[in-house]
Amino acid sequence: MLARGGVRAEVDDEAWLQAMLDAEAALARAEARAGLIPGDHAEAIARACTAAGFDLAAIGRQAADTANPVAPLVRALTASVEGAAAGDVHRGATSQDILDTAAMLVAGRALHPLLEDLSGAADAAAELARIHRDTPMAGRTLLQQALPTTFGVKAAGWTAGLDEATTRLRAVADGRLAVQLGGGAGTLASLGEDGIRVLALFAEELGLHEPVLPWHTARGRIADLAGALGEAAGAAGKPALDVVLLAQTEVAEVREGTPGRGGSSTLPHKRNPVAAVSAVACANQAPGLVATLLAGMLQEHERAAGGWQSEWLPLSRLFEATGSVAAWIRDCLEHLEVDPVRMRTNLDATNGLLLAERITTALARDLGRGPAHELVERASADTVSGDRPFADLLAATPEIASRLSPEQLGELLDPATYLGSAGAFVDRTLRDHADRAHAGRP
Amino acid sequence: MLARGGVRAEVDDEAWLQAMLDAEAALARAEARAGLIPGDHAEAIARACTAAGFDLAAIGRQAADTANPVAPLVRALTASVEGAAAGDVHRGATSQDILDTAAMLVAGRALHPLLEDLSGAADAAAELARIHRDTPMAGRTLLQQALPTTFGVKAAGWTAGLDEATTRLRAVADGRLAVQLGGGAGTLASLGEDGIRVLALFAEELGLHEPVLPWHTARGRIADLAGALGEAAGAAGKPALDVVLLAQTEVAEVREGTPGRGGSSTLPHKRNPVAAVSAVACANQAPGLVATLLAGMLQEHERAAGGWQSEWLPLSRLFEATGSVAAWIRDCLEHLEVDPVRMRTNLDATNGLLLAERITTALARDLGRGPAHELVERASADTVSGDRPFADLLAATPEIASRLSPEQLGELLDPATYLGSAGAFVDRTLRDHADRAHAGRP
Amino acid sequence: MLARGGVRAEVDDEAWLQAMLDAEAALARAEARAGLIPGDHAEAIARACTAAGFDLAAIGRQAADTANPVAPLVRALTASVEGAAAGDVHRGATSQDILDTAAMLVAGRALHPLLEDLSGAADAAAELARIHRDTPMAGRTLLQQALPTTFGVKAAGWTAGLDEATTRLRAVADGRLAVQLGGGAGTLASLGEDGIRVLALFAEELGLHEPVLPWHTARGRIADLAGALGEAAGAAGKPALDVVLLAQTEVAEVREGTPGRGGSSTLPHKRNPVAAVSAVACANQAPGLVATLLAGMLQEHERAAGGWQSEWLPLSRLFEATGSVAAWIRDCLEHLEVDPVRMRTNLDATNGLLLAERITTALARDLGRGPAHELVERASADTVSGDRPFADLLAATPEIASRLSPEQLGELLDPATYLGSAGAFVDRTLRDHADRAHAGRP
Amino acid sequence: MLARGGVRAEVDDEAWLQAMLDAEAALARAEARAGLIPGDHAEAIARACTAAGFDLAAIGRQAADTANPVAPLVRALTASVEGAAAGDVHRGATSQDILDTAAMLVAGRALHPLLEDLSGAADAAAELARIHRDTPMAGRTLLQQALPTTFGVKAAGWTAGLDEATTRLRAVADGRLAVQLGGGAGTLASLGEDGIRVLALFAEELGLHEPVLPWHTARGRIADLAGALGEAAGAAGKPALDVVLLAQTEVAEVREGTPGRGGSSTLPHKRNPVAAVSAVACANQAPGLVATLLAGMLQEHERAAGGWQSEWLPLSRLFEATGSVAAWIRDCLEHLEVDPVRMRTNLDATNGLLLAERITTALARDLGRGPAHELVERASADTVSGDRPFADLLAATPEIASRLSPEQLGELLDPATYLGSAGAFVDRTLRDHADRAHAGRP
Repeated sequence: MLARGGVRAEVDDEAWLQAMLDAEAALARAEARAGLIPGDHAEAIARACTAAGFDLAAIGRQAADTANPVAPLVRALTASVEGAAAGDVHRGATSQDILDTAAMLVAGRALHPLLEDLSGAADAAAELARIHRDTPMAGRTLLQQALPTTFGVKAAGWTAGLDEATTRLRAVADGRLAVQLGGGAGTLASLGEDGIRVLALFAEELGLHEPVLPWHTARGRIADLAGALGEAAGAAGKPALDVVLLAQTEVAEVREGTPGRGGSSTLPHKRNPVAAVSAVACANQAPGLVATLLAGMLQEHERAAGGWQSEWLPLSRLFEATGSVAAWIRDCLEHLEVDPVRMRTNLDATNGLLLAERITTALARDLGRGPAHELVERASADTVSGDRPFADLLAATPEIASRLSPEQLGELLDPATYLGSAGAFVDRTLRDHADRAHAGRP
Repeated sequence: MLARGGVRAEVDDEAWLQAMLDAEAALARAEARAGLIPGDHAEAIARACTAAGFDLAAIGRQAADTANPVAPLVRALTASVEGAAAGDVHRGATSQDILDTAAMLVAGRALHPLLEDLSGAADAAAELARIHRDTPMAGRTLLQQALPTTFGVKAAGWTAGLDEATTRLRAVADGRLAVQLGGGAGTLASLGEDGIRVLALFAEELGLHEPVLPWHTARGRIADLAGALGEAAGAAGKPALDVVLLAQTEVAEVREGTPGRGGSSTLPHKRNPVAAVSAVACANQAPGLVATLLAGMLQEHERAAGGWQSEWLPLSRLFEATGSVAAWIRDCLEHLEVDPVRMRTNLDATNGLLLAERITTALARDLGRGPAHELVERASADTVSGDRPFADLLAATPEIASRLSPEQLGELLDPATYLGSAGAFVDRTLRDHADRAHAGRP
Repeated sequence: MLARGGVRAEVDDEAWLQAMLDAEAALARAEARAGLIPGDHAEAIARACTAAGFDLAAIGRQAADTANPVAPLVRALTASVEGAAAGDVHRGATSQDILDTAAMLVAGRALHPLLEDLSGAADAAAELARIHRDTPMAGRTLLQQALPTTFGVKAAGWTAGLDEATTRLRAVADGRLAVQLGGGAGTLASLGEDGIRVLALFAEELGLHEPVLPWHTARGRIADLAGALGEAAGAAGKPALDVVLLAQTEVAEVREGTPGRGGSSTLPHKRNPVAAVSAVACANQAPGLVATLLAGMLQEHERAAGGWQSEWLPLSRLFEATGSVAAWIRDCLEHLEVDPVRMRTNLDATNGLLLAERITTALARDLGRGPAHELVERASADTVSGDRPFADLLAATPEIASRLSPEQLGELLDPATYLGSAGAFVDRTLRDHADRAHAGRP
Repeated sequence: MLARGGVRAEVDDEAWLQAMLDAEAALARAEARAGLIPGDHAEAIARACTAAGFDLAAIGRQAADTANPVAPLVRALTASVEGAAAGDVHRGATSQDILDTAAMLVAGRALHPLLEDLSGAADAAAELARIHRDTPMAGRTLLQQALPTTFGVKAAGWTAGLDEATTRLRAVADGRLAVQLGGGAGTLASLGEDGIRVLALFAEELGLHEPVLPWHTARGRIADLAGALGEAAGAAGKPALDVVLLAQTEVAEVREGTPGRGGSSTLPHKRNPVAAVSAVACANQAPGLVATLLAGMLQEHERAAGGWQSEWLPLSRLFEATGSVAAWIRDCLEHLEVDPVRMRTNLDATNGLLLAERITTALARDLGRGPAHELVERASADTVSGDRPFADLLAATPEIASRLSPEQLGELLDPATYLGSAGAFVDRTLRDHADRAHAGRP
């Protein structure tokens, strides 16, 4: 019920069925182009290759007898092709050729909505960074307020993370999706002299890469895809975690604005960050699935006895999980309501303590970092434990007062003037985002 | 398509829906018994609590607005209860109360077929151990023939592994499945003084344990269940791996005998160990899912922002995976064809080398282990590299010949007399299996 | 550098070495008691079995030649035993017998400090629950303030989680640690008729269980241990996460009080919740290690070709990680500074909104839950968006005002009177904690 | 004890210490070049930055007080720098800046021996493929003999897998290793206007990339590295699994030839495939560690409260594991003894059954695939169950005999003429290997 976005429909049972049929159709056409089978046979086969013509449930049940669904599918396909063309169905291929090629087609198709949601989320983050380039807020480390930053830098960090994940997934989409064709033991023996040529045409038919040799038990493509999906889930989960934390009742610097969502069944006043929570929940699924796919890489000889068969489910689930994270975080960021006033209020809540580093640095020139650190730490501790503002306590410390006037102290304690390269970082990120978006377009 | 056995139907969406409704019905009845709501209200609610009356897909869609399905379910349930009783639906409960209780019901129900298949597999393994108590075969370490053993000991090892996993899962089934009831923040505040009493009655209604306090964010029960399922998947996967290895063309000591299964689409002579391969493939899914559930244990405050919501899917999948391993291995072992003649042939294939340890031990009394080891190692190496039988080479070594006569060497090299405690181990295991089976019965 | 507590020293290389030597010594003594070797040989062997006498690094280097360290250790041990006794070293055992038995010894020893820290942490949590039984605070779900609870209930939840994990680990410590003894292929063939007897005496010597049969490739014990450790890491990580969240600058309801810790290198005013953060960081390590150990359960035939050899490192690391979580959270909870005033301040910060559920319940009797929910939701929304207190907005709603007087509203909005069974839950938990602590004592 | 290769020394505690010191030295020099500190201060600092000058154990102990080792290291470094330069140590940096930069340095350094071993292994695999381009052997699917292939194709598959993993790791090494520099909250505030310039110079000093903005909580770089390492471990583990299987007593087509390795402590005749088993055992460690690193990507705000701190250990361990797999498999493949005679013997052991597909294909032209498949399946079954050779049974089937003469059958049943594109696949792979090796050179 946390699933969201367009990926799910691209990895469901029907999508896999169609992809397997697409592989069979392309194989027949490639073989026709290579002169191995008549062209009208190939077209007769291709015409029969539409998922609607097959009983998915029945194929699933029969799949149990061979530990893969291709054998019953080929039987059903053969039965549905009329005349002599039936004899040319699945020619020279082994089950894994069809299923692996289908996996690559499924991956390619699922990557479309996934990349769209990821880059949509990155666009939304970039827009937040642009708008709030100069909105000061508390920077928090180990969940403690540490130093001022801007919401722009925070959103720029989300943007960069999403952009990198998108770039990496795009590289996999562009470079690693290849057909599989090796026949029973990876030699294409039953295609005689024509194996290599059919392989090339098969790849051409499907718009997939042609591998150097069959990769039945060399699963780097799956591993690479899995790693890139896992990275994307994490990159998209990071802003979700931040939103959950920023939306806390006591922080309240953002809230999710999607209409009609987030009400609690028993607590009418609550507005739960539903999209962000769902994104985190979906992101949590990814690492275990990546591990399952990586652990499956050690496959026996020319076809695995378990490792290959354990790929299909986690691969689909990993796509679903990552697709859902991307869709949820895009929705979350596109509707995020930001409260700069509350950000400033929270920033001021520690009475200037957040600028302690700046005071230390100012004093360190004279005193050395160690002694400066200690003096400021003492004043900080007194501020935390007592009622007096940090500025007063600093001014009341002779070693400090002798070096910094009250005016200087006041300037040093203004967070809006202690933002360093924040603006520059936002600008660099927005430029990089624009460049990547440009590069990603066809 | 590798899913198998009765577990799947107990963890699908409809099973979850019914379990949530069972929780709502039990809650109403418990509150009626506690005097909080009229008895006829409770019965009116309970009557409405059948999954068939609800639109699963619609609830799933609406679930996205609250990040859990209970809110829309409660709305639909309330709408389907007539009259004033509608106002008493879901009283005092929070969504997580219903979903966690449903998870425990689902777990309890799914454990039935799972335990049945696990103990069925253990029975089949025990029967193999009984029949083949004294069938010699090569013991293999690091996939090298090492010493003689019996197929009985091997099957006894499978039995013990399955029995331990069954015992552990049964302990979780008996001891850790508890209702959840805490209301919005775990205090049962809206039930006033009656919270504790309703909690006890709620547990009684459902036949689940009463927890000491709500466990909304104390997920030990889920972790315990996950660990036990993971262990069961591994214990059931171990014999599957052995079957795959024993069924290798070059070993051929067993083959799967389930009729109509195991044919290859392109290689008509093959008889693939489909059940064992499927069991391995399903077992491979488990560890990653266990890790996901364990990683989800760090849940925030009174209700998690992601960790709880990430449990449902992996828990169902883990049940499915483990249930499938159990069903596959049971099927595999119940139909396993064992070839004692081939076992003996393989045992003799190394010309007596497997008994090298025995010769070493015999010589070590006189010569010390080190020198004995070296002498035997040399003869072994010559046997491996050349044509002459091990017995001849041993007899041709003066330091050996002077201590062991050809007759003694012949006796020492007979594998059937070098089985140590094999028979006793089988007998002990069968007794233990009988005891456990007895203990597990109601 | 995040490692902490007494576990680490029990699982380091020297601890493993000593445990292997203890296994060798016990084996010799068991064989002497069984009459297989002279008693003075056994004592000579046992005398040599002290880790200090061996070159750990050299053994490690030589281990690479056999993929396990027992072969070089046995060579070194044999060399260090004088006279004829040397010939009785390691008699009848295989490397895995020694290493698996050592693993069980290491586990048993490491469980001591781990259980001590876990139960120490549980005691500290129970003490916090006792002290703060009636300290109101905001209950938070999805990190939003939801309803009042008490710090007592929160700490009771920590207590129960730690107690359950402790009970589970204790069950493993008491029930699953067994010697390993099977010889080269699990039949104890080289011990002739005496195998079973030596096995029993070996177990007796070491205070470990006697298994029904060798478990070289039946890894349920390791899996059970791994699962229990993973659960413990999660249970101990949960309060750590809560402390990190409660210590946030904007929440500030607790802080870590261990002297001299938590300062930041650059931010002198910060007091980082170092123990809690470290606990979380260590807890994060556990799930992946559990998965590795579970994935290793599918082991080949009589000795695995990889799966067994991949256990040692993750098992030690899992102990280290879990031990460190336990030690950090114990330290954290034993020194936790709780701020009831700030808890009350935060509870009041939402102007009574947290009691919205109570108002809904009060109105639902007359109006039905749905309409009541809607009325209250509207007033809540206005409270959130505007300046007026919740009480005023409720009183200004005619359908509410006609049913609840201002006095009634005032009472209903007092959090301290809306704590339901909170106190009872604390009491139950403390009783249960006392019972478990009692049961756990020898 | 399974650790091997040069990676380990690059990721041990001392290597991390030196990398942190290198980061501090480079920071000082960058700041000097930016005019922020005097050049002689930078040189004084840089001179002090050698690991030998620091007490690693003491720093480790003190690290517990801040949950990271940089604070005590900076104190120790400051103490060891003489004069005013001490005040310029660690200027403007936060602990994570140093530790993350050190992680990137460590990664870059560890990748050298890792890539060397991976490409060494790929070279060895390629050489095997070249030598055995035309050595026929049984192709095995689901561990059943399926069709003939060549050892050349098998080794080419290993080569391609290793090459792809190497290419992917090299891309990470070249493209994703970047310095970290953000100061306390990622704004470089304490460097004033000079932050961006120092960042660029810092990157230049260390030969690392300059990030667009600080990536304290955007962990794509770590995730990418983890994924690539996991893929490499799997790619290097695959040939190891094959070697273990080919070295089985009953298969015996290869054996490991490294002198002095593989003897068993109790079984003198055994020659265990120690390198391959160790490689598998190390490869098994990787997936769980990758999952831990991916799960850690959800990091809070400007510095994580646990997720970052949980990276260091698994990252080092993942390098160690992957480095060891690479070193073991390189050693294994460089010394692999291949037995073409035994390969041919095994290929012939099924009396021609392996060519069943070819007969089916030959008959299918006339009979259609289905009927042909059935006829051949029947003859196969009779071959398996009885004594008569496949050729005789085929010839005795009228529907077959009427279509294929005994001579034709004899030709069709010769495995050496049914290798399809095997040779071409080897040639393509060797060309690709040469191209990649060329591209990878500086």
